[in-house]
Amino acid sequence: MDYQRVFTQAIDRLHAEGRYRVFIDILRNKGMFPNARCFAGHNGPKPVTVWCSNDYLAMGQHPKVIAAMEEALHDVGAGSGGTRNIGGNTHYHVDLEAELADLHGKEGALLFTSGYVSNEATLSTIAKVLPGCIIFSDELNHASMIAGIRNSGCEKQVWRHNDLEHLEELLAAADPEAPKLIAFESVYSMDGDVAPIHAICDLADKYNALTYLDEVHAVGMYGPRGGGISDREDAAKRLTIIEGTLAKAIGVMGGYIAADQVIIDVIRSYAPGFIFTTSLAPVLVAGALASVKHLKESSIEREGQQAAAAMLKKLFADAGLPVMDTVTHIVPLMVGDPVKAKKVSDILLAEYGVYVQPINYPTVPRGTERLRFTPGPAHSEAMMRELTQALVEIWSRMEMKLAA
Amino acid sequence: MDYQRVFTQAIDRLHAEGRYRVFIDILRNKGMFPNARCFAGHNGPKPVTVWCSNDYLAMGQHPKVIAAMEEALHDVGAGSGGTRNIGGNTHYHVDLEAELADLHGKEGALLFTSGYVSNEATLSTIAKVLPGCIIFSDELNHASMIAGIRNSGCEKQVWRHNDLEHLEELLAAADPEAPKLIAFESVYSMDGDVAPIHAICDLADKYNALTYLDEVHAVGMYGPRGGGISDREDAAKRLTIIEGTLAKAIGVMGGYIAADQVIIDVIRSYAPGFIFTTSLAPVLVAGALASVKHLKESSIEREGQQAAAAMLKKLFADAGLPVMDTVTHIVPLMVGDPVKAKKVSDILLAEYGVYVQPINYPTVPRGTERLRFTPGPAHSEAMMRELTQALVEIWSRMEMKLAA
Repeated sequence: MDYQRVFTQAIDRLHAEGRYRVFIDILRNKGMFPNARCFAGHNGPKPVTVWCSNDYLAMGQHPKVIAAMEEALHDVGAGSGGTRNIGGNTHYHVDLEAELADLHGKEGALLFTSGYVSNEATLSTIAKVLPGCIIFSDELNHASMIAGIRNSGCEKQVWRHNDLEHLEELLAAADPEAPKLIAFESVYSMDGDVAPIHAICDLADKYNALTYLDEVHAVGMYGPRGGGISDREDAAKRLTIIEGTLAKAIGVMGGYIAADQVIIDVIRSYAPGFIFTTSLAPVLVAGALASVKHLKESSIEREGQQAAAAMLKKLFADAGLPVMDTVTHIVPLMVGDPVKAKKVSDILLAEYGVYVQPINYPTVPRGTERLRFTPGPAHSEAMMRELTQALVEIWSRMEMKLAA
Repeated sequence: MDYQRVFTQAIDRLHAEGRYRVFIDILRNKGMFPNARCFAGHNGPKPVTVWCSNDYLAMGQHPKVIAAMEEALHDVGAGSGGTRNIGGNTHYHVDLEAELADLHGKEGALLFTSGYVSNEATLSTIAKVLPGCIIFSDELNHASMIAGIRNSGCEKQVWRHNDLEHLEELLAAADPEAPKLIAFESVYSMDGDVAPIHAICDLADKYNALTYLDEVHAVGMYGPRGGGISDREDAAKRLTIIEGTLAKAIGVMGGYIAADQVIIDVIRSYAPGFIFTTSLAPVLVAGALASVKHLKESSIEREGQQAAAAMLKKLFADAGLPVMDTVTHIVPLMVGDPVKAKKVSDILLAEYGVYVQPINYPTVPRGTERLRFTPGPAHSEAMMRELTQALVEIWSRMEMKLAA
């Protein structure tokens, strides 16, 4: 067995497909987002504008968030020092869970070290607690949900993306006595479309299924209090479990679920991915708490982001760039080829000081490689016009087609 | 299907077995570890001494760590804003990975959001890249390693804890051509014993197996530079992959692996648990970087901890308390019953201001429930004498046996 050869071949395959990933080495400048310093391939850092951050509302530099983190750092120190059960349950954790439960109108909430872990741990555990459970999974669900479903070992039925007829067909065909869970997202982050939450809940009612909604790309950004699409559509109370993240619009790090207390208690007590891991550092929890509280009461950031996204989509469309039609804040530009997508990104970074990452397989299906822009309240109109101009020039130079 | 009933029954089982977990709500006091404030069942916080933190060396309050975190917070903000591939690769991450690679004498290192995720993601991925791989797993391996091995879908062979003969028996019986990986820990955290690393590497050489060593309870604490037991025994270069945490002796949060560059590249490119998750917040990475650098050059903390552990073991033994014999810094006191272990812990907290968590199933096997003390350089001799006296009183009150 020649291990070295097998490992080398695995990497060679990525190069051959043009999807070997190079991580761009940056430092954002607090107080001046979306400005950052880039360390890639240069002598010393060079200034860039970041166009692909999931810190959608720039809360990662909000003075309230920074102040809360600094206070926690000096009050209780760096890490939590333990799992939630063994020394790592701080008062910040207790407070943030209460705040998140309130945000989603649920009895309880539970923090995880990431959104990935919250999906994996919750989905894999709930299905084990319900013997014979069938999980009905939207075909575009995130990798972390797929991991949780697979690791549960239960039966999985995949329904075509946002296709209610197909979902009902599968529900109707299943054993009426079997426990059922419908797992889906509100905002699909790479295409920017939205699930029909109420209609899915109607089907769940009809077929006695539980529901699991991933709101990671919507929490903080939609609804009068930032509770996500389920908040905007007044659907939160109909959902069994709502999952969210503290690492995107909230601007910090970590994940969570909100649900009835008995479900929180089950996941807290049975999920290895929750039990056997050091809890979130208090400094993160304190920052997230300040951010969630602020976004419950302030809509300026949400409005600024929606306005920025609308403007960038219009500028791209007016220039004939292949912007994908979305109903959300996500602005994807389809390229359809991993090598070309990377080349556009490389030129933007090297010549225009623009940082936007090419999105390739396995994050999106092969042949749909794209650039994904996430304009926010801190991106100015001038920045957007410069970006559009740069893209038009590159499209022309690379002899790619612009719409008339 | 009555979901509510199934969930309630799952929780009732825990109560019936006496292992329903209550998280003790605390805030540690930076600069005064192991002192903390406890919010559980009181009007306002009451002062307690924490005896069960995995912040073994109190680095979570070290001025260098706090200063580095504060600087990062003000320089780049709260969260990283993205995955490592999409906007979340900061210069702190690059620097810390170089530092960790150097710590273990490896070509590269890779950060994860936790030690749990580093084990799960690496073990599940490496076995998929090596078709037909057999993983040889020590029976006491951590839940996160077990999850990674199970999620890999590969064949698993469990060897009796630290039993070299049994390991060799299994290796010899396996297909000589099959890829093989031996997975084990250096310090087993609940029993406090240590693996025979060189002897295991000898078997790996003989049977052409890769090796995977979890050093989470040893990194920072053993070896001249804090590289763990493999550093102390000059065995790091013999190991294929060394896994560690930033959340215990390093005092912050996060996990990592160190290995040859090609292996780092494979895990970085293929592991969903690495790819699809927001990277560690820069503030954490900056703190961990300062901590690792400090512990490479300073042995005062390690020596202080070893002295404290030796003293507490002696005090317990002299008092006739059932302290388990360990060769490490872990000081477990065997109770052997979940209800009694919780009762001792409850009395300590309520009457003596001592916080030590009872350890029950599934963290340890049923019937071996225990209290696990982690004295460190910040615990004084006076604290240890008070603790011993308190335990003797409780043992007597509960009519539990003390050795002569």
